[in-house]
Amino acid sequence: MTAMNRQVLLASRPQGPVTEDNFRIVDAPVGEPGAGEVLVKNEWLSLDPYMRGRMNDVKSYVPPVQIGEVMVGQTVGEVVASRDPRFAVGDKVLASSGWQLYGVARADEVYRIDATRAPASYYLGVLGMPGMTAWFGLFDIGAPKPGETVVVSAASGAVGSVVGQLAKIHGCRAVGIAGGKAKCDYVVQEQGFDACVDHKRGALHSDLRAACPDGVDVHFENVGGVVLDTMLGMMNRFSRIIICGLIAEYEATAPYAYTRLRSVLVNRIRMQGMIVFDWKDRYGEALQGLAAHLAAGRLKYRESVMVGIDNAPKGLIGLLRGENFGKQLVKLA
Amino acid sequence: MTAMNRQVLLASRPQGPVTEDNFRIVDAPVGEPGAGEVLVKNEWLSLDPYMRGRMNDVKSYVPPVQIGEVMVGQTVGEVVASRDPRFAVGDKVLASSGWQLYGVARADEVYRIDATRAPASYYLGVLGMPGMTAWFGLFDIGAPKPGETVVVSAASGAVGSVVGQLAKIHGCRAVGIAGGKAKCDYVVQEQGFDACVDHKRGALHSDLRAACPDGVDVHFENVGGVVLDTMLGMMNRFSRIIICGLIAEYEATAPYAYTRLRSVLVNRIRMQGMIVFDWKDRYGEALQGLAAHLAAGRLKYRESVMVGIDNAPKGLIGLLRGENFGKQLVKLA
Repeated sequence: MTAMNRQVLLASRPQGPVTEDNFRIVDAPVGEPGAGEVLVKNEWLSLDPYMRGRMNDVKSYVPPVQIGEVMVGQTVGEVVASRDPRFAVGDKVLASSGWQLYGVARADEVYRIDATRAPASYYLGVLGMPGMTAWFGLFDIGAPKPGETVVVSAASGAVGSVVGQLAKIHGCRAVGIAGGKAKCDYVVQEQGFDACVDHKRGALHSDLRAACPDGVDVHFENVGGVVLDTMLGMMNRFSRIIICGLIAEYEATAPYAYTRLRSVLVNRIRMQGMIVFDWKDRYGEALQGLAAHLAAGRLKYRESVMVGIDNAPKGLIGLLRGENFGKQLVKLA
Repeated sequence: MTAMNRQVLLASRPQGPVTEDNFRIVDAPVGEPGAGEVLVKNEWLSLDPYMRGRMNDVKSYVPPVQIGEVMVGQTVGEVVASRDPRFAVGDKVLASSGWQLYGVARADEVYRIDATRAPASYYLGVLGMPGMTAWFGLFDIGAPKPGETVVVSAASGAVGSVVGQLAKIHGCRAVGIAGGKAKCDYVVQEQGFDACVDHKRGALHSDLRAACPDGVDVHFENVGGVVLDTMLGMMNRFSRIIICGLIAEYEATAPYAYTRLRSVLVNRIRMQGMIVFDWKDRYGEALQGLAAHLAAGRLKYRESVMVGIDNAPKGLIGLLRGENFGKQLVKLA
């Protein structure tokens, strides 16, 4: 290979909000695949809220990124060299190359995608980790029944928009929570939610009451903080809360103090944390369901694209501020 | 009937801790059972933490006691008049007569007990609501596997002592949390827990770490507040928390602010509130299991008895302060 690789490294750990100074962009030689490995030229990088957690030096469900290491992330690209019989040059694959133009990966950690069924980038969103998260969180943990009310925060985001649409398809009332009128309009008018509450209006509780006249049976939490604490006061008896993300806490320097846990007792709420990896043996099931809804036009999907790897830090910073509209991607090639 | 009834009424709602002024003791005529009703002479009154909640004028899972009404509570007694064919004078029954010497009840809200199998008072404790709570909370929600670590707070109390002993019988490591050395000694030496942490020592986190070298798989919460917040930081991946009681919050004037909810996400904790009534169709199952363990000497049980209905307020106040040792009862006759 004569091409050069370009990588975004973690330069320092953020104290509070992420800044561009926390990253360093370097050029490096393209790696050589060893036996059982492939070299992938990345075309799309997914940006996701969990990345903020990896930038901290704290115990979480996976180890943090070390200073000087390439930032982690899922990618979609094309195999340009293969030393494993399962992959040929030209194959479109899903990999976890991180924030770089080229990645070497073990063949058993790379997944061939069917780019004829949907655009390749969809495998980072509605047909990828966010879609799987929405599917298993909503159906396996939330277990909504038709007619019930499902609320989802970060409703215009990659996970939230799928959660609400799946809830509607399932016969539920779907109510979003999002930041700003434009996002709320999008969620209702384009994605077909029954209502969306703008948490920036400063009337979260009364707006939610109005949007959920029968209370809330399933809450899918992507945000945490005041949103979750308010929702705890809205939940019906025997309701379920999926704790999928707590983005409001990720950049805070102190944890949020929740004051309505008593509702868990009084209303017999079941609250459960989820990380989508725990369902990896069942991804095929979700992929099939999501692809069918997408093909039938029942599932609307929107991407928010930054162009060029140098803009990846800006993309993550915007995502953490809630500036994205739909699934946040970086186009690498 | 020529006997007089004596009743304890709710006189005022407590602001913070309950005081004796919140109650009023009155003499009243004994009621007459109508068709389909029985008159029960109460022998034992159960005192339970949930009663504190009923003294507040707030929405909960059942309506509050109104000012001037008899305080609610379960009782065991003897039928002294019956206008229902299902009950005869002399039958020993479990009822919800509340804090009074005599109660009139609908026959379908009274349950005959087998006072030859166990002392009648046991049907208010290990064979009653606290025993059922321990059984269904631990097994249905906690779902412990042999070898796992189960922690229970208020470990010397009516529910906690059964939870820990059932966990041991099930092959788990049982660790209690209790207030004071005497209670902790009792829990370990008499009830056979593997360890018990004294939350009054002021080293809850480090003491729990020492008592739970493999972390915690199931936590049965009767207390809440700092105990629950500390436990959130101790839970293993895929662990379960049963929210059965939040006694630390009941008398507080402001709700506790929990700071470790992020652990629910990171560790994929399942946290669920429980009220034992939700299992009432399955009480027989628990009763059979608990009675068998009791008969086989595998389950130790201790009562803390106040004598005389006039002492019921003192009994509840002591219970809320954690002064009781085992199941708190009032002997009425």
